[in-house]
Amino acid sequence: MFLFTKNFDEQKARAMAGLRKALEEGKVDEDIIPLLEKINSLENYFTTSSCSGRISIMEMPEFGDKVNAEWLGKWHREVTLEEVLDAIGMHSKGQLWFLVRSPIIHVSARTMEDAVRILNLAINCGFKYSNIKSISHKKLLVEIRSTERMDVPLGENGELWVSREYIEKIVAIANAQLRRAKGKLKKLEEEINSGR
Amino acid sequence: MFLFTKNFDEQKARAMAGLRKALEEGKVDEDIIPLLEKINSLENYFTTSSCSGRISIMEMPEFGDKVNAEWLGKWHREVTLEEVLDAIGMHSKGQLWFLVRSPIIHVSARTMEDAVRILNLAINCGFKYSNIKSISHKKLLVEIRSTERMDVPLGENGELWVSREYIEKIVAIANAQLRRAKGKLKKLEEEINSGR
Repeated sequence: MFLFTKNFDEQKARAMAGLRKALEEGKVDEDIIPLLEKINSLENYFTTSSCSGRISIMEMPEFGDKVNAEWLGKWHREVTLEEVLDAIGMHSKGQLWFLVRSPIIHVSARTMEDAVRILNLAINCGFKYSNIKSISHKKLLVEIRSTERMDVPLGENGELWVSREYIEKIVAIANAQLRRAKGKLKKLEEEINSGR
Repeated sequence: MFLFTKNFDEQKARAMAGLRKALEEGKVDEDIIPLLEKINSLENYFTTSSCSGRISIMEMPEFGDKVNAEWLGKWHREVTLEEVLDAIGMHSKGQLWFLVRSPIIHVSARTMEDAVRILNLAINCGFKYSNIKSISHKKLLVEIRSTERMDVPLGENGELWVSREYIEKIVAIANAQLRRAKGKLKKLEEEINSGR
């Protein structure tokens, strides 16, 4: 049997100290803080990391080499065409990608029953890719995640493969995805409030 | 407590009957069959569904409306530029997308320890998005899934936003992603063979 329940309170104290520090340093996405506070106020859960969803421009030295990937621009909010074009203008080498990522919240649960409860709640709020990410003696980790995503190659080694008009189109789609994802965060916040 | 362990053998018998039928009807991707057979030969696991990874062209009537989405082309193998252009040629309305999806295998495990064992093995074989997808009295379900993915908007309502040259580029990237993903399937097949 796994010992995560036995270690829950100690791990939660540690995570909460880490979160306080991250908050002080301004390292937590503003628009996800109320939801994190709500989850952490429950005695059977704590959050270990989070991202409120983002749009980014990434430069990858080689295919699949995420270790050496570099962000030329990264926003946890809707973006303007100009911001994206400015970031693209900084491209020089490797593969250039336009990316959208869903919000993602890692939540540790005290028991398996607690994990399944928040997992099902998240799925019902539209976070359809939510899952139990890992189980160990230390932690039982639920990942709350949604389906919004784009992975669009833009060019390579300084050469751009798409037009300004195309970038305008995908920025509009990305902003719509992000709005939808942020709406789900709001919904989850309300549902957690009303339950338990 | 969840009763999945108690219901395992009955659920496995049912799933295996379903798989035999799907195999007879040619509904299972050829290149994933040896892996499915290997997993199902283990007494503590059975597969419930799978896809060996795919490249597709999809038409979505409205943003996010996957229910009414339609595939204009779908391949569980590398594709040629011509095949993709033919599929794109069939586009008439809604949003047009070029998609790559990782292989995905749903495996039911007898106990939580069994689930964590195959989850960690899959992650070590490169299936980094693997997770425990759901837990219920009926089933404890592990999802084996990798990171390869593309979501590229191509056009809308009959209008194409990108050039033939761009499509050629993304087909090459997609084929590279699919090759890499299929290699991971092979690796997992070998690792499952050598273990337990």
